[in-house]
Amino acid sequence: MASTTCAPAVSAQGEDAVVRRVAEVFERALGAAPAGEVWIGDDAAVVAAPAGRLVFATDAVVGGVHADLSLTGLDDLGWKALTATLSDIGAVGGRPGYAVVDFCVPPGTDLVLLATGVAEASAEWGCPVVGGDVTASSQVVVGAAATGVLEGDRPPVLRSGASPGDRLVVTGALGASAAGLRLLRAGARGPASAIAAHRRPRARLAEGLVARRAGATAMMDVSDGLGIDLHRLAEASGVGIALDTVPVADGATEEEAVGGGEDFELVIATPDPTRLAEAFAAAGLRPPIEIGRCTGDAAERTLWGRPLARAGFEHVLG
Amino acid sequence: MASTTCAPAVSAQGEDAVVRRVAEVFERALGAAPAGEVWIGDDAAVVAAPAGRLVFATDAVVGGVHADLSLTGLDDLGWKALTATLSDIGAVGGRPGYAVVDFCVPPGTDLVLLATGVAEASAEWGCPVVGGDVTASSQVVVGAAATGVLEGDRPPVLRSGASPGDRLVVTGALGASAAGLRLLRAGARGPASAIAAHRRPRARLAEGLVARRAGATAMMDVSDGLGIDLHRLAEASGVGIALDTVPVADGATEEEAVGGGEDFELVIATPDPTRLAEAFAAAGLRPPIEIGRCTGDAAERTLWGRPLARAGFEHVLG
Repeated sequence: MASTTCAPAVSAQGEDAVVRRVAEVFERALGAAPAGEVWIGDDAAVVAAPAGRLVFATDAVVGGVHADLSLTGLDDLGWKALTATLSDIGAVGGRPGYAVVDFCVPPGTDLVLLATGVAEASAEWGCPVVGGDVTASSQVVVGAAATGVLEGDRPPVLRSGASPGDRLVVTGALGASAAGLRLLRAGARGPASAIAAHRRPRARLAEGLVARRAGATAMMDVSDGLGIDLHRLAEASGVGIALDTVPVADGATEEEAVGGGEDFELVIATPDPTRLAEAFAAAGLRPPIEIGRCTGDAAERTLWGRPLARAGFEHVLG
Repeated sequence: MASTTCAPAVSAQGEDAVVRRVAEVFERALGAAPAGEVWIGDDAAVVAAPAGRLVFATDAVVGGVHADLSLTGLDDLGWKALTATLSDIGAVGGRPGYAVVDFCVPPGTDLVLLATGVAEASAEWGCPVVGGDVTASSQVVVGAAATGVLEGDRPPVLRSGASPGDRLVVTGALGASAAGLRLLRAGARGPASAIAAHRRPRARLAEGLVARRAGATAMMDVSDGLGIDLHRLAEASGVGIALDTVPVADGATEEEAVGGGEDFELVIATPDPTRLAEAFAAAGLRPPIEIGRCTGDAAERTLWGRPLARAGFEHVLG
């Protein structure tokens, strides 16, 4: 955990001591580096090269923007940061490799709790955290970058590969994260599954790997909401979208399912949904859920024949 | 530039529009992805695997912490973020590969200017920015993660490899960045070199590659100040440090040279400083500057025989 810093050294809780405590969190979760690799503790990590093409992604989560820290824990924020990034790796058909994490925290933040959530995600998804940075800031920001590997010769599954006639499926019902947030705000009366989905979202890594092998033509994760993310897939592919249904998660509303975001289910285009369903079944995965199809009218965006709102979450940056 | 977000979409300056403008900045600086690679625009980037071991590092810079944005530009902050990370790649003897960048910005921030500084560093150091994330925050934070390649079979040059008797050298005079900040605060009367060193620090990438090939035993970049960074190298290697001199940059004070930080010169341990100097000369690099030696008394930290203060910059996080 090397760092470029500008705050005067004054305290026993200075950077080096804190970095050691954070490093211990990751070593407890993941063990030490194998022989020949360098993980946390030097200027940079050195690890084995991927046996295939290199996949690379990053996401940052911000306390107060991506999570209400009065409702969920710092560990949940840490979990979400790494899980969101690994979801992006999986959404092109990649397998996670290694992660590095930037922790930007106000003085007094429970950095060990924050790192514990990252370490739990790291262990869950099999992606060692091999380095990072700790820096002072006025707001909690966790930036998680991860490498991955794209195995074999097949191309990655991009947003741009869908063709008219392809069927669209999702890997699970939607809206659970938004429902969980609503339930937490109301004092948490409702399905525990929704609250868990909000606090500890799952990355659909196995689904992404299987979908790539089973001939998916386009894929992305539903991070900002199906409404907005499907517009992105349609624009990238130059196809229209006609949805017949949107599967609604337990406890969620239809509006949350269309526009909720942060579910991290995958939306997949395929010319052969039966082959995809069989591959999912063979891998022991939940059945993919058909929601509609890609059309040749690139301007079409419909749900039950009515216009599909560009619904979801965008940062306002202008 | 995929993103997990929680702010309602309301504006023409929403995330997608801003991400497109940022992507254009990087495409102008670096051109489009070569055939078979996926850069900015999908869930994750897909690039060639490194021809050697994978090096991986990250650094975050925070407006108001790592830079006074009333004295230096957002482009300078962006430059510093990526340069600091690539300095870490170089400090183990790696060559930069690819970068991903998180931009966390308050509404109204000139994100194009911020990205332009990152793109300029990206072009300067030959490290394409292939992805990233844009998110809202209350303070400007730029997190830059980069891969690199460690070529050949030689081990990386870590902080922990120095032995008693090794000579210590630095790749340049120190204190320029701190002097530049002092001069900017005073209205910028003084050497332009110091101000440039503060606004646009250099990563000593060629020096790191040559030092590894020329038998360096330990290496790190001087990011937090020679005083504190040499303590770290000595602790990692289990050696003492006895310095004879500290080269002071034009316009800097001796205190700034010892404790200033952010110079990003490399400090290198080697049993054969003549071989190192010859290798630097053969590569057309500035001569390394001998500053002292490693000793067998692991508790020793001296400069001209007097105790070397643990001087430098640590974030206060407790």
